[in-house]
Amino acid sequence: MPAVLFRSPNDSSEPWRQALSERIPGLDFRAWPNVGDPADIGFALVWKVPPSFLKEFPNLKAICSLGQGVDHIFADPELPRGPHILRLVDPWMGRAMAEWFLLQVLRFHRQGPDYEAQQRRREWKQLPAPETSTRRVGFLGLGALGAEAAGKVAALGFDVAGWSRTRKSLPGITSYAGPEELDAFLARTDILCGLLPLTPETTDLMDASLFAKLPKGAFVVNAGRGAQLVETDLLAALDSGHLAGASLDVFRTEPLPSDDPLWTHPKVQVWPHVSALTNADSGADQVAENIRRVFAGETPINSVDPDRQY
Amino acid sequence: MPAVLFRSPNDSSEPWRQALSERIPGLDFRAWPNVGDPADIGFALVWKVPPSFLKEFPNLKAICSLGQGVDHIFADPELPRGPHILRLVDPWMGRAMAEWFLLQVLRFHRQGPDYEAQQRRREWKQLPAPETSTRRVGFLGLGALGAEAAGKVAALGFDVAGWSRTRKSLPGITSYAGPEELDAFLARTDILCGLLPLTPETTDLMDASLFAKLPKGAFVVNAGRGAQLVETDLLAALDSGHLAGASLDVFRTEPLPSDDPLWTHPKVQVWPHVSALTNADSGADQVAENIRRVFAGETPINSVDPDRQY
Repeated sequence: MPAVLFRSPNDSSEPWRQALSERIPGLDFRAWPNVGDPADIGFALVWKVPPSFLKEFPNLKAICSLGQGVDHIFADPELPRGPHILRLVDPWMGRAMAEWFLLQVLRFHRQGPDYEAQQRRREWKQLPAPETSTRRVGFLGLGALGAEAAGKVAALGFDVAGWSRTRKSLPGITSYAGPEELDAFLARTDILCGLLPLTPETTDLMDASLFAKLPKGAFVVNAGRGAQLVETDLLAALDSGHLAGASLDVFRTEPLPSDDPLWTHPKVQVWPHVSALTNADSGADQVAENIRRVFAGETPINSVDPDRQY
Repeated sequence: MPAVLFRSPNDSSEPWRQALSERIPGLDFRAWPNVGDPADIGFALVWKVPPSFLKEFPNLKAICSLGQGVDHIFADPELPRGPHILRLVDPWMGRAMAEWFLLQVLRFHRQGPDYEAQQRRREWKQLPAPETSTRRVGFLGLGALGAEAAGKVAALGFDVAGWSRTRKSLPGITSYAGPEELDAFLARTDILCGLLPLTPETTDLMDASLFAKLPKGAFVVNAGRGAQLVETDLLAALDSGHLAGASLDVFRTEPLPSDDPLWTHPKVQVWPHVSALTNADSGADQVAENIRRVFAGETPINSVDPDRQY
């Protein structure tokens, strides 16, 4: 059996070694830098490896991302064309992501930032009660993660829509599709929730022009990728009063540099990329199944079309 | 047209005056104590008025509660027998309360206070990912509001139990009942959610002895009544490190005095009794319809059979 190679700057290898070895007895699991003979490696389980790293393995059958996103793999200009590109579609991750978006939506809906500010001033004042059914939440991105989060927000009675490349049919969620429907989607969105894959089309999508199309007083939440949001434009829209608040889990540079103005902006909540941390226990079933399939010459699950890149 | 009289110790009259006047042009709306001639009053919109108050209006056609409950009306031994007794059937209030508890549970579950503190220090650090299915949420009180909130928390995958006077059968919620099962309920509760009615038995229930029975690191949330929680005991349990955080919407003295230490405690979030505001906008359609029907001699909606009292 070929070997599995693990490399990630974020995730520790031991939980994966253990979880996969329990599922595949005799698995030859190698954690970088202990690669051994590159020709042994048939399956790479990776997160943000350096460019040109993956081309060094002549017998690679599959490259599996340690997260839902695969943009970090396609960012490699020398990415070998032969191996399957696989993503982790982890039900735990969907639940974690939905929880995080629910928390952000509820905090903004229930005037959390206003009441936090009142507490700092020791001010007791009841603000007008918000109405759930007319609060318009909009998800940029209705993939597996976006659909689950949008569905859970809609189940609480919010007015939920989503925007995606192709039209979706999801119960309780109004679907907007394609660039020609983006403006209409933005015009009806009070709380914008970003959960898009990173592609050339979504890079810098959330910029001054997009923020201007949201209603005054809108909130912006992003857990897609940092490169989709122009942070200086966000700060300007918050400072002008057009946007009322933002909660971000992803940034153009991670970790966020300690002198970045986002840290201290009173209308911004900074989360250190924790909306849906990868979890070996819940993801290992799927990775083990794909290792088995790929080594047996079968079609893997959750593979990505290299032409669409998601 | 007869006049509408408004009296409540909790609700302010102005939002109701405005919402009803928009719906019934020329409405003669009187807020107690500006009653005028008692014979003018044809419709009373009330919450917890004193005994013998309602018998003073000889031409009263209907008495409408400002809440779902009508027990406060039937508690009057001199309640006149002629008028219709009406309730406000407001789905909004249950939803608002459930939203508020979801927000508190998700914030504590997802380490919100820790990440807020990290942001103040400009510290980028990922904490261990929390596991939803093993996070034990416990509702003190499983009435209509508690059951709805507990059900929505359980629907997200949390391990939810509730404690009430009598045993409840609610899908997905473990029921603990009576004083003899309180300790077992507390021992399994990581996030305690208070939503009890105020009775002699629940006054001062949340005290040092109760907090000591929660696991170390537990969180306390209260939206029942302030007199159920001994605030000095809560602060001591937070300062000792036994409790990790608290979020309160009700207080022994409201408004919370500006020199109260709860305002500035780093582990306490203070909300000014807004978890589920009675909402004139969502209730006014129903009340206006009943005013119209009663004054036209038609059968009102949401009326209560005085013999069954519900």
